[in-house]
Amino acid sequence: MGKIADRLKKLNIELPQAAAPVANYVGWVHTGNLIFTAGQIPLREGKPVCTGKAGADVSIEEAEEAARLCAINAIAQAAAALDGDLDRIVRVVKLTGFVNANNDFTQHPRVVNGASNLMVEVFGEAGRHARSAVGSSSLPLDVTVEVEAVFEVS
Amino acid sequence: MGKIADRLKKLNIELPQAAAPVANYVGWVHTGNLIFTAGQIPLREGKPVCTGKAGADVSIEEAEEAARLCAINAIAQAAAALDGDLDRIVRVVKLTGFVNANNDFTQHPRVVNGASNLMVEVFGEAGRHARSAVGSSSLPLDVTVEVEAVFEVS
Amino acid sequence: MGKIADRLKKLNIELPQAAAPVANYVGWVHTGNLIFTAGQIPLREGKPVCTGKAGADVSIEEAEEAARLCAINAIAQAAAALDGDLDRIVRVVKLTGFVNANNDFTQHPRVVNGASNLMVEVFGEAGRHARSAVGSSSLPLDVTVEVEAVFEVS
Repeated sequence: MGKIADRLKKLNIELPQAAAPVANYVGWVHTGNLIFTAGQIPLREGKPVCTGKAGADVSIEEAEEAARLCAINAIAQAAAALDGDLDRIVRVVKLTGFVNANNDFTQHPRVVNGASNLMVEVFGEAGRHARSAVGSSSLPLDVTVEVEAVFEVS
Repeated sequence: MGKIADRLKKLNIELPQAAAPVANYVGWVHTGNLIFTAGQIPLREGKPVCTGKAGADVSIEEAEEAARLCAINAIAQAAAALDGDLDRIVRVVKLTGFVNANNDFTQHPRVVNGASNLMVEVFGEAGRHARSAVGSSSLPLDVTVEVEAVFEVS
Repeated sequence: MGKIADRLKKLNIELPQAAAPVANYVGWVHTGNLIFTAGQIPLREGKPVCTGKAGADVSIEEAEEAARLCAINAIAQAAAALDGDLDRIVRVVKLTGFVNANNDFTQHPRVVNGASNLMVEVFGEAGRHARSAVGSSSLPLDVTVEVEAVFEVS
């Protein structure tokens, strides 16, 4: 068992099947040493588990949990790109977190921390990434957060 | 005639001149094997052809058509980067679609499909890309959608 | 003294210490020949200096000035990545500017020009970048603008 697979097991995280997009795009593209994932939403078994505006319809804690699920789904895409061998991930390069938020929301970083913390739990120092956290007026399926990732791989 | 130029002709798509930004930025940057385009908006002959909020001021179908035009404009940028030789495009790596949308909009994927479908019509399997679709509270010139692209080139 | 350090001095720009994120992410990641920065906000000495919606709470000119500060902060991140040797920057590849804006705002390009102009002042032709400018319903700490950057380095 790989090091990262082992780590996921210790964290009790079971990677889902990478979500297969239903349109003319894909969940990941591997180019050179980089993997770009599609924007990941808090889907579990194909269903959105957290919808509505962060801090309004949904608590910050719930939104953070949703961001964590987005990150897990991003790792699932990387796993699909690497035939399951997550030990080939050298670095989490970049996360961009789009938070479904009203005009007066200011706590986007706390929400996206759910994704950032998960990456560091799983990959350790290699999980530390550059990050942007911004507000979106709305998101697909009314999900609370969407996270896209760039990974460096060997 | 190149393979992709031929394909564009069969699709009756005439690439515009790549839009020249009017400020201190450029339409594309080629770095290593990647081309990053500037965010493309639904301009035709220098004029925005689709403005307003998707699903409110503008129908989903019109917004999707606008996203298609953004994708054509992104290909025009890539053509400028490659001195017209679009056969050097190995892969459409990533599209990010920002949809001008009210707080309750949820159909961003359908809008951005206009861009995704165009890429696959033109590039076939190599046109399948990682994609994010998100809502923006507003966009430049009030356009309905803005799409940026990353291409891998040989 | 390096060429770019000299240029900054002539422009009377003192680079701040790169802001150290307070969460599980970092200000920059260097991968291959690219540096990806975290989203930079108009912080000066750790405090946001421009908050509120562009064109509503804050004038376009103030918002543009804030974008300029974001760009300075992005250069500070690149300097940290390069142990201060900014002459290793070959090209500013990409800027993405998220403008905190109401639904009816349309002048995102003017705001983000503050960042674009700064890059060209500092790096000359190598400062010309691909750019996206979009509206965000809200941003962290209610700042007026957030800018992320990709640099190519030697």
